[in-house]
Amino acid sequence: MTTDETPGPKIPSPELYVEVTQFYARQMHRMDGGDFGGFAASFSQDSVFAPAGGGGLRGPEAIETAARAAAGRFGGAQPRHWFDMMTVEEADDGTVSTSYYATVTVASSDGSVQVEPTCFVRDVLVRVAGTLRARSRVIERDDLTARARAEG
Amino acid sequence: MTTDETPGPKIPSPELYVEVTQFYARQMHRMDGGDFGGFAASFSQDSVFAPAGGGGLRGPEAIETAARAAAGRFGGAQPRHWFDMMTVEEADDGTVSTSYYATVTVASSDGSVQVEPTCFVRDVLVRVAGTLRARSRVIERDDLTARARAEG
Amino acid sequence: MTTDETPGPKIPSPELYVEVTQFYARQMHRMDGGDFGGFAASFSQDSVFAPAGGGGLRGPEAIETAARAAAGRFGGAQPRHWFDMMTVEEADDGTVSTSYYATVTVASSDGSVQVEPTCFVRDVLVRVAGTLRARSRVIERDDLTARARAEG
Repeated sequence: MTTDETPGPKIPSPELYVEVTQFYARQMHRMDGGDFGGFAASFSQDSVFAPAGGGGLRGPEAIETAARAAAGRFGGAQPRHWFDMMTVEEADDGTVSTSYYATVTVASSDGSVQVEPTCFVRDVLVRVAGTLRARSRVIERDDLTARARAEG
Repeated sequence: MTTDETPGPKIPSPELYVEVTQFYARQMHRMDGGDFGGFAASFSQDSVFAPAGGGGLRGPEAIETAARAAAGRFGGAQPRHWFDMMTVEEADDGTVSTSYYATVTVASSDGSVQVEPTCFVRDVLVRVAGTLRARSRVIERDDLTARARAEG
Repeated sequence: MTTDETPGPKIPSPELYVEVTQFYARQMHRMDGGDFGGFAASFSQDSVFAPAGGGGLRGPEAIETAARAAAGRFGGAQPRHWFDMMTVEEADDGTVSTSYYATVTVASSDGSVQVEPTCFVRDVLVRVAGTLRARSRVIERDDLTARARAEG
């Protein structure tokens, strides 16, 4: 136990923190609104996206195609992404590392809401022409983590 | 694809962003705590509230009456409102436009929790004697959106 | 109705607000990641933890033991804590009072997600060697609140 000795984490500036909240809000509004091109445009040209369960996508065009395909699972229901417990750390070179919880709710026309498996996500954000873009995203799905643990 | 050309959104000041978070936290504590008068007092005298499914309410007294009536659906269970993915934009005249995801969880005495249909909400906030008040709220319920899409 | 007369709440500084978000994100990453020692180290030596349903824990060692025991209910499933509607107020002596909604999702290896009863939590945070620590936490579980209300 090192209560009094553990150094505190590096805290992001309020300006950066707020910019990051707005980045994710707009990115997810696009995704959940079916604007997959707009969603993909929030990734940098050299971005890498590692979905849960393996594989990897390189660049906005591959991400757009995959996001559109993945949304097929919703049928006509309305997805919403929810994030929480986000850490934000800025490196000396200006890149921003975040980590956060994520889940998706799916609202059907009959009024039911399904909660998809929770995830732990790690992003690296960079500035392109002054604006934040995601350069990498790595998603770990908690049900797969639990399964791996059980089979461990 | 316009990754490198899309201009970034206007970011709110950290002071405003934090003030907005506190506005909503207190507004929802009142609502979920059954203080419908306090909830309604967070709306301006000239406010307009457009609930999901149609109709419109004008002013704090109508909003208080409607909020109290709507809470009847919970029986004795405890509701909690959850918001996420909030965009915050301040216009030149100082009005603040927000948009966000919202849902309500309902905790029953038997330990079960029900998740109500998710919503997309758009507010306009203004200052009254220096303090933020909601001047308008427009709620779109995602299950109704999905139903309209299916009937499209 | 006192729309125009109710004074606004005291708003935390952006720096403090962001520091508080990072405190909780890291505290919950530790808890949900099974690092109960790290979780407990985020409490001050003189801390008091009042779990839902009664009883009280004093100090990091008791909190660590109780957190590890409580996590047994998850079996091998993956818990995630979610907070929202957080008020943050700093007193003149620098102590920080927060209040917020909390729930836990539990992701099982079969892909199902369970939502645990929502809670209302009140914390007092203090600085130890410059870093935020929780000095007290009081948890009210909403299903128990609903039950007490029903039993009147």
